[in-house]
Amino acid sequence: MDKPALPKGTRDFGPVVMARRNYLTGVIRQVFERFGFQPLETPAMENLSTLLGKYGEEGDQLLFRILDNGDFLKDVPDDVFALRDARKLSQYIAGKGLRYDLTVPFARYVVMNRSDIPMPFRRYQIQPVWRADRPQKGRYREFYQCDADVVGTDSLLCETEIVLMIDEVFGKLGLKDYAIKINHRDILNHIARATGAAGRENDLFVALDKLDKIGEEGVREELSQRGFATSVADKLFDFIRTGAAPNGLTQLSKDLPESRGLNELQQVFAMLRLAGNDLTHAQFDVSLARGLTYYTGCIFEVKISNVAVGSVCGGGRYDNLTQAFGSKEKLSGVGISFGIDRIYDALAELNLFPSQVQSSVKVLVCHMDEGTFRFGLQVVQQLRQAGVASELYPDITKLRKQLDYANRRQIPFAAVIGPDEMSRGTVALKNLTTGEQETLTTEKLIEKLKP
Amino acid sequence: MDKPALPKGTRDFGPVVMARRNYLTGVIRQVFERFGFQPLETPAMENLSTLLGKYGEEGDQLLFRILDNGDFLKDVPDDVFALRDARKLSQYIAGKGLRYDLTVPFARYVVMNRSDIPMPFRRYQIQPVWRADRPQKGRYREFYQCDADVVGTDSLLCETEIVLMIDEVFGKLGLKDYAIKINHRDILNHIARATGAAGRENDLFVALDKLDKIGEEGVREELSQRGFATSVADKLFDFIRTGAAPNGLTQLSKDLPESRGLNELQQVFAMLRLAGNDLTHAQFDVSLARGLTYYTGCIFEVKISNVAVGSVCGGGRYDNLTQAFGSKEKLSGVGISFGIDRIYDALAELNLFPSQVQSSVKVLVCHMDEGTFRFGLQVVQQLRQAGVASELYPDITKLRKQLDYANRRQIPFAAVIGPDEMSRGTVALKNLTTGEQETLTTEKLIEKLKP
Repeated sequence: MDKPALPKGTRDFGPVVMARRNYLTGVIRQVFERFGFQPLETPAMENLSTLLGKYGEEGDQLLFRILDNGDFLKDVPDDVFALRDARKLSQYIAGKGLRYDLTVPFARYVVMNRSDIPMPFRRYQIQPVWRADRPQKGRYREFYQCDADVVGTDSLLCETEIVLMIDEVFGKLGLKDYAIKINHRDILNHIARATGAAGRENDLFVALDKLDKIGEEGVREELSQRGFATSVADKLFDFIRTGAAPNGLTQLSKDLPESRGLNELQQVFAMLRLAGNDLTHAQFDVSLARGLTYYTGCIFEVKISNVAVGSVCGGGRYDNLTQAFGSKEKLSGVGISFGIDRIYDALAELNLFPSQVQSSVKVLVCHMDEGTFRFGLQVVQQLRQAGVASELYPDITKLRKQLDYANRRQIPFAAVIGPDEMSRGTVALKNLTTGEQETLTTEKLIEKLKP
Repeated sequence: MDKPALPKGTRDFGPVVMARRNYLTGVIRQVFERFGFQPLETPAMENLSTLLGKYGEEGDQLLFRILDNGDFLKDVPDDVFALRDARKLSQYIAGKGLRYDLTVPFARYVVMNRSDIPMPFRRYQIQPVWRADRPQKGRYREFYQCDADVVGTDSLLCETEIVLMIDEVFGKLGLKDYAIKINHRDILNHIARATGAAGRENDLFVALDKLDKIGEEGVREELSQRGFATSVADKLFDFIRTGAAPNGLTQLSKDLPESRGLNELQQVFAMLRLAGNDLTHAQFDVSLARGLTYYTGCIFEVKISNVAVGSVCGGGRYDNLTQAFGSKEKLSGVGISFGIDRIYDALAELNLFPSQVQSSVKVLVCHMDEGTFRFGLQVVQQLRQAGVASELYPDITKLRKQLDYANRRQIPFAAVIGPDEMSRGTVALKNLTTGEQETLTTEKLIEKLKP
């Protein structure tokens, strides 16, 4: 028999990783819920009619399609079958696909349940998505997305609260050195017009978006390759320099007095200050472009300094969540997506996972024989009743083997019960990190280990 | 454009349902972790070579298969393609399938990570599984399983702890009227031998398993249809009656002195008593058979009385977790599976979801104009800092509309800020259930709502 293996690009999350991931998503969930966001979960499978055409042609190719059950060849026309063309055939034999992101299922949910949803609707969703991308370091075919969106209001309070939430999450995780970059599509559009690139905004922004990676010279080169005159690049970088100055927003307002975006960002920063945010992390970045044409208002991106994981959060305001489903109501919204895998890597690299997260069990109760095992069963149950995660070693065996197990499990304490301890109603509590040992009554033991 | 729809047999879990589900799984997780069980998550997709042949022929037919990406027809031999046979073709075009249960992925994980896993290994896993069953009331194509298993030890402590965990979970959920039925495969095997049905145990037990549903007469009829003599049924029901008597275990031991199973169950019940369990819910049930041939030792099943949801938990001891993957090491284990959907239905029917579970947000901060909105932003942030889930209504609009929203969201309190309140640094706190209203300083407001 072949050794079993995992499908390419997928992962098991074992106990240590899971404990850390649960800690991370727990922090995020708590902040989301404190801001009034409500959980939503949608099925892994969606009808292909829901998914196709939403992610561009490349996205359609990356969907995992599910073979129809039963005789899936039954309804394939003979002429189609005779072509032996995988792409054509798949339209007849696979009606469902795996979720590619969380935004399309969210939009589908809103369209299907519109009349039951009180607006504005704040939802968060933390679920895996699947993409048939070429697997590589840090890129998986199954990975989690973690999205929060408010739809049904244009209020800039939503943009403000998204920044507050990001700061809250990162603060709770112990991250200090990071930047929440904020820009606005309308500012970029005004800049495009002022540089003489109106109508070619997208080309301009795709090049600009790489500034971080390839620098000014690289962007200039790319612009020239895309057919922009040198004068466009010159004017563009004038704007970038103005916007990057300490008082960038106000300075730009002089050059672009018509820009709704500049006005909106000024309101967002004013609300942030009012809400007690000291703007240590949140900052205007006129060069932030973000590729998606989907965004129409504020855009966000978060980077952690000194950690090579790239951007860890991204989002922005969009005009019309449900347009793709033919809905006439224009539902504007603003959303943020936390890159859980990357934040996990950053926390690991910076050693920021709290040590108690690694050891789910606090104490292993050890014994010497049948009698002390039976006493141990009573002790372990008292510990659990008091809220202490604990185990009794299940087999009667050498103490050494029991302690070995505790060490491999990273359990910090062993409560050893020998016949002497039992006769006095005590345990010998061993700190497996320091080697220290003390004899305690079971009451004192519980008191000491109780959370 | 067609209205979007969900694939047959799948569900969205909206905010209210999710809040309840998170409460339910939260209780279960907490108990599992207190008993030392560690979380594991495996990918939704598995190689079909991992899944096929593990669930019988019917199970193989119910797997959701994932179409290979790219030109999936490339490697199909011409003669196979010419057959136009869906079953044959699928072997060439779909190499992966969706997880059908959590046991096979668990076994695969153990085989692949054997040397890194400290034994005994206690894992729990709460993830969806997919089966292409015909959807019907209460049966879905995507549903959650919630499993806990200990492998790598024969100790009956594991059986004992499983019963303790079930009692703990059900107690925390507020369930009172339920039975944890316990039996042992070896007892059933001895009974089969003593009735003269040796070699045909399976037929006997499949019929017996229906006793709850079809009664003694029904079982007798089915046994006769399956070709058993009346004397077999007579003897079988003699044993059932003996076992059902108040002192059933001891009584049966006289008739079946050789049974290892009877001895083991007596040990389990003794350990339960020692651990402080009063056996209100745990009971020996000699007629409990459970279909799966997989089980070799103790078997468990839980039923809630007065609720028509069927069995809500099931499990037992098995001999060899990793056998199907060709592993030579015999890893015995014992597991329990909580039927989350059914327990959810039971809690809903018995009205046992705590009321605070429905309302994730405690207070909506309402305002009258630009100025009170700005004051509200400061209030809502103070509330959140103090751990109170709260929202500020994002748009400046009529108070009536804001209160409507609070009611639809089931938010229990509204903190209304008018110009008078603001000038005094107070809010008018309205209890939206009782209609009571009081004026409070923001400090008192926080104190009152703080968790």
